Amino acid sequence: MQAVQEQKSFGGTQGVYEHASKETGTNMRFAIYQPHGVNAQTPVLWYLSGLTCTEDNVMVKGGFQQHCAEHGVAFIAPDTSPRGANIDGEDESYDFGTGAGFYVDATESPWSKNYRMYSYITQELPELIFSSFDLNRDSQGITGHSMGGHGALTIGLKHADVYKSVSAFSPICAPTQCPWGNKALTGYLGSDNASWSDYDTVELIKSGKKTSHILVDQGDADNFLVEQLKTELLQTACDEAGQAVKIRMQPGYDHSYFFIATFAGDHVAHHAKLLK
Amino acid sequence: MQAVQEQKSFGGTQGVYEHASKETGTNMRFAIYQPHGVNAQTPVLWYLSGLTCTEDNVMVKGGFQQHCAEHGVAFIAPDTSPRGANIDGEDESYDFGTGAGFYVDATESPWSKNYRMYSYITQELPELIFSSFDLNRDSQGITGHSMGGHGALTIGLKHADVYKSVSAFSPICAPTQCPWGNKALTGYLGSDNASWSDYDTVELIKSGKKTSHILVDQGDADNFLVEQLKTELLQTACDEAGQAVKIRMQPGYDHSYFFIATFAGDHVAHHAKLLK
Repeated sequence: MQAVQEQKSFGGTQGVYEHASKETGTNMRFAIYQPHGVNAQTPVLWYLSGLTCTEDNVMVKGGFQQHCAEHGVAFIAPDTSPRGANIDGEDESYDFGTGAGFYVDATESPWSKNYRMYSYITQELPELIFSSFDLNRDSQGITGHSMGGHGALTIGLKHADVYKSVSAFSPICAPTQCPWGNKALTGYLGSDNASWSDYDTVELIKSGKKTSHILVDQGDADNFLVEQLKTELLQTACDEAGQAVKIRMQPGYDHSYFFIATFAGDHVAHHAKLLK
Repeated sequence: MQAVQEQKSFGGTQGVYEHASKETGTNMRFAIYQPHGVNAQTPVLWYLSGLTCTEDNVMVKGGFQQHCAEHGVAFIAPDTSPRGANIDGEDESYDFGTGAGFYVDATESPWSKNYRMYSYITQELPELIFSSFDLNRDSQGITGHSMGGHGALTIGLKHADVYKSVSAFSPICAPTQCPWGNKALTGYLGSDNASWSDYDTVELIKSGKKTSHILVDQGDADNFLVEQLKTELLQTACDEAGQAVKIRMQPGYDHSYFFIATFAGDHVAHHAKLLK
């Protein structure tokens, strides 16, 4: 693991590191913010980014450092896909391939060799993080935006023992029922949709998966709300399954980092409260 | 004047606008954050950006919106130079021409036609802003970073009646005595350096210019500190002239937006206190 950059921010250290990943077969980067006084008791908040993003976007635009410094929480932002896997077609569209790993383990050729973001995020990267940084492995939360909100909710629901707090910004709630999700799941998992429900938040909740009280913020001026995000399906699934959730429809906000930054503080506080 | 984008941020509106500038002879963009409840009593904080930046960088990386929302201050970030003036050599280097207007009115050909950032910032853009937005023209402050810190200090000192509060992040304190400044002032004003001192903070203070209590933050791990910024000359000039200044050397911080974002809140509070 090599340091790409380390810079002081709100009294702590904002770093970017690169390592050779066994899961993706490529070099992968991640950003990590360590608050001042970081130690083995410091909780960890994972942040999964959305389509087209790298580890960089939330690091420079999200404004999480201030709040993580205040609450004494470390913040980890992985990349969203392998890069440079050299698969035919991986750079053809913004919503599939590079920058669009969808946090699944692909089973379809030729993607199955490199596009193993689920195992990368839930297994390989945590092993690297907790062997390299002095942080509290028993105190992890997960959040994310859009495609990364989908990742945070599905991973949080499937590993409630690991991620003790879960939240999301404008998540793709039901990828089996929207164009972005259909394209990605068909490409990575094949057209037999029997396997898709394992990567669909609404389906996971319907199947009985549960986690701690979920916080979701969603802008009501978000252009993707109706066609891609389908927040109302999450509300219904949670209501019917008895999963505690607070979905806040935020008037006038769109899908951008201006929206994320506005509510970043509330999310860090939500996680800090459950993790401490 | 045309809206390029308008997005909700911390309860207010972050906008980018474009207009045809008479001073630069080009289309110019600026970013403006208007807090919720903005009105004719709302103070205005001008932010001048550094080398290579546009109006975009501080808007997405600076984190000022949160603090401006809290204090009820509008925030304006102009671009740093004309763009597309089609002058031979304008895109050859990062520290001269495009992205490097240095907030001067050039007198040397061929720059003198378009590179009129001093008049643009102090006259043309204020006229446009205060005729287009409902803000308090009698309550303006000015800040900036690096080259923009130089711009904020020189403009603030020369127009203390207009800008009632002044601060800077890692400013170029004495452009007549550093490589960045020498290159820019030679190019824009000519090699006869008699005219340079009008754009040099240290020289302006020595000549008797005064303004309200200045706040300056400077990272002590800033790679440009010794050769380009020369903060110690500002301290000496202020001490000798009796100009009130608080220069805070911030341990471990570099020249980046991580540094700016960390202390953005303190600067907005400084301006809000003096402007209200």
